[in-house]
Amino acid sequence: MPLWFSEEASPGHRLEWKVRRVLYSERSPYQEIMVLDTEQYGPSLILDGIMQTTAGDEYIYHEMLAMVPLSVHPHPSRILVIGGGDGGLVREVLKFSTVTEVVLVEIDRRVVEVAKRFLPSHTTAFSDPRLTIRYQDGAKFLRSAAQGEGYDVILVDSTDPEGNGPGRFLYAEAFRRDVRSALRPEGIFAQQTGTPFYNPETLREVSADVARKFPVSGVYWCTVPTYPGGLFTFVSGSLSAEITEPRRSVDWPCRWYSPEIHRAAFVLPPMLEELVGKKG
Amino acid sequence: MPLWFSEEASPGHRLEWKVRRVLYSERSPYQEIMVLDTEQYGPSLILDGIMQTTAGDEYIYHEMLAMVPLSVHPHPSRILVIGGGDGGLVREVLKFSTVTEVVLVEIDRRVVEVAKRFLPSHTTAFSDPRLTIRYQDGAKFLRSAAQGEGYDVILVDSTDPEGNGPGRFLYAEAFRRDVRSALRPEGIFAQQTGTPFYNPETLREVSADVARKFPVSGVYWCTVPTYPGGLFTFVSGSLSAEITEPRRSVDWPCRWYSPEIHRAAFVLPPMLEELVGKKG
Repeated sequence: MPLWFSEEASPGHRLEWKVRRVLYSERSPYQEIMVLDTEQYGPSLILDGIMQTTAGDEYIYHEMLAMVPLSVHPHPSRILVIGGGDGGLVREVLKFSTVTEVVLVEIDRRVVEVAKRFLPSHTTAFSDPRLTIRYQDGAKFLRSAAQGEGYDVILVDSTDPEGNGPGRFLYAEAFRRDVRSALRPEGIFAQQTGTPFYNPETLREVSADVARKFPVSGVYWCTVPTYPGGLFTFVSGSLSAEITEPRRSVDWPCRWYSPEIHRAAFVLPPMLEELVGKKG
Repeated sequence: MPLWFSEEASPGHRLEWKVRRVLYSERSPYQEIMVLDTEQYGPSLILDGIMQTTAGDEYIYHEMLAMVPLSVHPHPSRILVIGGGDGGLVREVLKFSTVTEVVLVEIDRRVVEVAKRFLPSHTTAFSDPRLTIRYQDGAKFLRSAAQGEGYDVILVDSTDPEGNGPGRFLYAEAFRRDVRSALRPEGIFAQQTGTPFYNPETLREVSADVARKFPVSGVYWCTVPTYPGGLFTFVSGSLSAEITEPRRSVDWPCRWYSPEIHRAAFVLPPMLEELVGKKG
């Protein structure tokens, strides 16, 4: 009997994925967690009905969220990742030899446990001694972190702000204020802002707020087959370094990222420039 | 009762679009034609079950297929468009003031008639006196055209080569040989090659063949929300001009294309470089 997972991208659009096997399903204290073995992209993590990451195409999102900020920071050493319990993002971050310490703050312990069991290619860096995982609310963690020694790079890898999931607090203005306070003087921050075709407000609000809070800011994009709308965006804010120009090359194989893609990703089509207020 | 159009992107993936109204449906001598008013993107043309073009997002594909070759050709005057009966592509081509003559060769007269009726924003250039529409097999037209005075730019805007639709002949090696013969000495050709996530062979074969046949060739990309797989590609071949660098600016508003996007579109992620044989 054929089984299909159906995701509502908008009230008028759905993406459907054929399921070979339901690998896992539970309701954690924070959200509904499902792992499906999809015919197209293999093991796939779904939170509250939204496809988060798949074994087959996760490299695009994780490379772009990690490589861009870490390639422009002059010396990325202490890194904070909020969300990202699947492990894919810290795996990319830990490829940088300058990195001495990564703190991964994931609110939902079950996501980490489920990823270890069903997404082995995501979690290869979980045994890296530079990594500490804290099971805490990322927004609360950050408020206390603002008094500490600070981070060179803060990456937010969460569910979308829409809906009632734990991701919604990570798109609030107060949260970005705490991000800025927790950064060291040359610090850089980046966060996904979804697709402007279906959630233009997220990108518009976050990019405007980051532009207000950071002396240097930018919007960059890629495209991920399992994320609806084709165009998928990120916002980054920097306290000193120019974000569009990588200052170090990566000396390991990437599948999406390259220094040339880094620069090209900041070139926005006019419809996107207009949305983020660079034109018109 | 809710009505959804479902498109099979691959055996494991479907895209679904909520339908406000079925505007038109028929079986022409060449293919099944449907026009649906979709909630997301308005009037949408579907041929043989595949979404071809929608009022809401067509600008991305049409701008990228028209603007890139016409911006690099030293003096684009006579243009041949094969397929493209919906009118969106010739609308973009006719924006160039250097263009004196456009021949649109569409095999299926019903597509043009249906577009005139249901896709008015596509067909705004159909009354342009520089345009001639011929209802003919594009491959056959090109064979006879090879003996004529030739074209500066040839654009192929067809259905995908997969399946049994009329588009399949426009991806054959013999067809591209005729394209090359029908081009004037500085001529340029471009064609869509779909998404490498689901049909990698199309891009691989066309890009390799165009690289053999043309002294200058290139792969470029964009992303279109109604085309599955996010990453959507084009192949272009040129008899003289460098394709990656626009030599004229467009002085009308575009929504996706810009000279900066033109250059950035030729920057390929490593997975795509590998597919088209630029690496490894």
